[in-house]
Amino acid sequence: MTIPSDLEISRASIPAQLTDVGRELGLDEHLLEPYGRHVAKVSLSAMDELADRPRGKYVVVSAITPTPLGEGKTTTTVGLGQALRQRGHRAAIAIRQPSMGPTFGIKGGAAGGGYSQVVPMEALNLHLTGDMHAVTAAHNMLAAMVDNHIHHGNALGIDPARITWRRVMDVNDRELRNIVTGLGARVDGTPRQAGFDITAASEVMAVLALATSLADLRRRLGRIVVGYDTDGQPVNAEQLQAAGAMAVLLREALKPNLMQTVENAPVFVHAGPFGNIAHGNSSIVADRIALRCADIVVTEAGFGADMGAERFFNIKCRASGLVPDAAVLVATVRALKAHSGRYKVVAGKDLPDGMVAESPEDVLTGADNLRKQIDNLRVHGVSPVVAINAFPTDHASEHDAIRRVAEEAGAHVAVTKHFSDGGKGALDLADAVAAATREPSRFEMLYDDGDDLRTKIETIATKVYGASDVTYQPAASRALDEYTRLGFGNLPVCIAKTHLSLSSDPALLGAPTGWTLPVREVRASVGAGFVYAICGDMRTMPGLGSHPAAERIDLDENGEVVGLS
Amino acid sequence: MTIPSDLEISRASIPAQLTDVGRELGLDEHLLEPYGRHVAKVSLSAMDELADRPRGKYVVVSAITPTPLGEGKTTTTVGLGQALRQRGHRAAIAIRQPSMGPTFGIKGGAAGGGYSQVVPMEALNLHLTGDMHAVTAAHNMLAAMVDNHIHHGNALGIDPARITWRRVMDVNDRELRNIVTGLGARVDGTPRQAGFDITAASEVMAVLALATSLADLRRRLGRIVVGYDTDGQPVNAEQLQAAGAMAVLLREALKPNLMQTVENAPVFVHAGPFGNIAHGNSSIVADRIALRCADIVVTEAGFGADMGAERFFNIKCRASGLVPDAAVLVATVRALKAHSGRYKVVAGKDLPDGMVAESPEDVLTGADNLRKQIDNLRVHGVSPVVAINAFPTDHASEHDAIRRVAEEAGAHVAVTKHFSDGGKGALDLADAVAAATREPSRFEMLYDDGDDLRTKIETIATKVYGASDVTYQPAASRALDEYTRLGFGNLPVCIAKTHLSLSSDPALLGAPTGWTLPVREVRASVGAGFVYAICGDMRTMPGLGSHPAAERIDLDENGEVVGLS
Repeated sequence: MTIPSDLEISRASIPAQLTDVGRELGLDEHLLEPYGRHVAKVSLSAMDELADRPRGKYVVVSAITPTPLGEGKTTTTVGLGQALRQRGHRAAIAIRQPSMGPTFGIKGGAAGGGYSQVVPMEALNLHLTGDMHAVTAAHNMLAAMVDNHIHHGNALGIDPARITWRRVMDVNDRELRNIVTGLGARVDGTPRQAGFDITAASEVMAVLALATSLADLRRRLGRIVVGYDTDGQPVNAEQLQAAGAMAVLLREALKPNLMQTVENAPVFVHAGPFGNIAHGNSSIVADRIALRCADIVVTEAGFGADMGAERFFNIKCRASGLVPDAAVLVATVRALKAHSGRYKVVAGKDLPDGMVAESPEDVLTGADNLRKQIDNLRVHGVSPVVAINAFPTDHASEHDAIRRVAEEAGAHVAVTKHFSDGGKGALDLADAVAAATREPSRFEMLYDDGDDLRTKIETIATKVYGASDVTYQPAASRALDEYTRLGFGNLPVCIAKTHLSLSSDPALLGAPTGWTLPVREVRASVGAGFVYAICGDMRTMPGLGSHPAAERIDLDENGEVVGLS
Repeated sequence: MTIPSDLEISRASIPAQLTDVGRELGLDEHLLEPYGRHVAKVSLSAMDELADRPRGKYVVVSAITPTPLGEGKTTTTVGLGQALRQRGHRAAIAIRQPSMGPTFGIKGGAAGGGYSQVVPMEALNLHLTGDMHAVTAAHNMLAAMVDNHIHHGNALGIDPARITWRRVMDVNDRELRNIVTGLGARVDGTPRQAGFDITAASEVMAVLALATSLADLRRRLGRIVVGYDTDGQPVNAEQLQAAGAMAVLLREALKPNLMQTVENAPVFVHAGPFGNIAHGNSSIVADRIALRCADIVVTEAGFGADMGAERFFNIKCRASGLVPDAAVLVATVRALKAHSGRYKVVAGKDLPDGMVAESPEDVLTGADNLRKQIDNLRVHGVSPVVAINAFPTDHASEHDAIRRVAEEAGAHVAVTKHFSDGGKGALDLADAVAAATREPSRFEMLYDDGDDLRTKIETIATKVYGASDVTYQPAASRALDEYTRLGFGNLPVCIAKTHLSLSSDPALLGAPTGWTLPVREVRASVGAGFVYAICGDMRTMPGLGSHPAAERIDLDENGEVVGLS
């Protein structure tokens, strides 16, 4: 069976009126603001208006440690939502907005795929309702106000060498990573080293995702630290009188976007923070609204359970106060075979030859990763459901092997074929998830606010990643002391490491033990509300390849988009 | 009488449903795509669907040479549209989208003002439907692809020292005017000098404004020259395979935005090219649609008649093939008094004391500017209508003086009080404009495509500006020769000079003669379709002041915008 391209499936779908999508969720028309024909923003007053409704079940979708190809977390999230809906649940899906830069780089688009995707994919991948652009604008206005403050006399005494606030752009542009600004004459600013990150890496994006209301957004923006004064004291956006204007720029962006899947299931698409230096989860506001609209909300957390789900529990749920009822762990035959250490999977290339041959042994050899990631959900007291995302090249014996391992670890298990079959292909998974949500939630966070920053880092490293030790570069150690002194020690921590291993070394597959997590650098996103520890090289501004997707993307003679896949 | 603030008037207005606004223009609901509650994009298929309708009258609003305070061109445009509607015409207004950077700098907002403004002003001034952001994204993607091409081997042989394509951002950020990019390691690009302009200055913005269809947009994007190869040959966006993706990013942005005035009159808001290095007019697409919807379309051209209207005639009408039926020239007592040379008007400060005393003599002393600007419309064969934009401090004798001068020059004249009285205050102006449009149009352009570039520059300089001579810096002269050799000689020219004088020296008021226009530099916007000659210093990236408007802009406790004025 050949499945048409994502763009073809998207085009062939028959979208419902968004008012009908809203009605399914009990979102009355007055709470929806249409943005074009296929997207609506949901009014924030929905949070108050629907406050009396019962809260739905809250399900987070995560994954085992993926291969560089990804294991279908978004498609599973979408497919699961569709299947729950087919089973008669009032279901809602919540995902991040894809970053536009990579759309024109390698990826093409990110909207799920096959018969489990959000439509229309052009709208999702291009601009959407402009939230990303609003983040860019707010971020860069703050940057301009920092330099403008210095230009006009620097009353706050900002140390130009200690400005930490960079600029952002939603374009893959390596050329802007390291720049010198302020050249020219006196009227052209103050020369200094600077640089651009991609918009998804902006702290403003993390603020948008973690704000619980417009007033909370405004407060968090004010707390953003842009650098330090000559006495070493932090300078924030409130002191620069920039936070109000930033909030004004973000006012519409805080309203979640309502879209639909290829099966017309409701999808909230909102915020897109990075998954390494930020927490990689969609917005709290969208989840809050969705939980009052739906019996069951399926939300996605970026990367594997050690990263996305850990931050979902310890950063996002900490900020929102919401409690998850179940967690889905997407597993694939190919990823577990890769964790056997016998094959090397490379993005953009075909799987190695031997890898598609039937081999439950390979799967079992790599199964430690699955066991550990199940454990990473259990340690938070959340019921795990393993979703075996089936590929046409899989064999039944291999699925059985995964099932055995998962059941032995006490997880619910189901095979899902949502990519080729839509919601119908995920009905077993829907049943398993529904069963898991009926179990009592014993959710608990991994650490307390009051634990010191090193304890938080070490708790995540040892309990979730399986490290035996943590080491700190001198600069990282100094930063931790300084943040503690400045009163940021009560924040949760976000550890930026590779997503391709439970460890900080992408070459270590399976569930490595006996290794040491090297913390190279520590920074604080005080506005968003977390401290992040960088372990390894983290690229915050991607580049384009030798033949970026942009070269193939165009309009056809009818003005329709082609080449977005 | 105290007039409430623009924001208060905007808030107090009762907006009509946009479907009703569209219906008034015969724009059926299927041609409107709502973007939020107060803006709709108009489908480009309207151009075909309405092609059989008669074309409305086409009126351009320009001004005498303004003071730094501006003389109310946008308010007059809006007020005139409202008045024509009150007189029973099916009227449409077409204006540029304001740039967001300056909204947070000095200006606050730009949406007309008083009882002649576009509402809601927050929507107009903040993001609108994201067209500006789409221009930013398309522009910067091309920039990334230029550097990426060099990074991956530079097959086209682009000379890094001759890259003319800068980057853009819709933020007032002087710090980015002159930068060095590509620092860091080999993987971080190629070090070179670069810089940012404000988005309104992007050639992509000019392309958006001058494109006559989606296919034409695509072609123009492909022709954009980004720099030169080591043989001195131009390299364009088509060669970089970037134009298709740029067109995809701009597909929605090419649809004009429909809004309404405080009196519910229909307004097309679309594109916002700079008024100095670009042609400073709203989009052709909006005008094309509006002219099939309305009996009479009132569109605004940036700056004085020597600049905005001249480009309207010789660049915009050349590209569109549309023929204007009348031209309004906004005049104020204060500007004519300033042209007397007796007073110095400074932006952000009160008028000098003597200036508000009754003095028709001062007005008459400055009247040469009015005569010359009337002549600048006549030379294009278009009937001029002088709109005396009345201020509370004006005296009847001063209005009479203006009226006398204008009538002697053969122009229609009317006093207008649209700021305080809305459309009702501009009924006389509406009658005068309607009368002017009934005269046969003898529109002719100032020069032919086939004239050489120096002839075009000299024709504008002598016939419109009143210069006696033009001189060229060596670099400008070389560029003119090179552009001619490269086949760009058939393009119209856009002269970038101060808008505060008919001459290139802002200190020369009235209608100076016997002066020489110094062309410092010549550049080509080949995609947009004009060559521009720079006379004097042109700032393409503004800075923020010591207390930018952003410091006062915030959300109140109800989440409403405050401080935008």
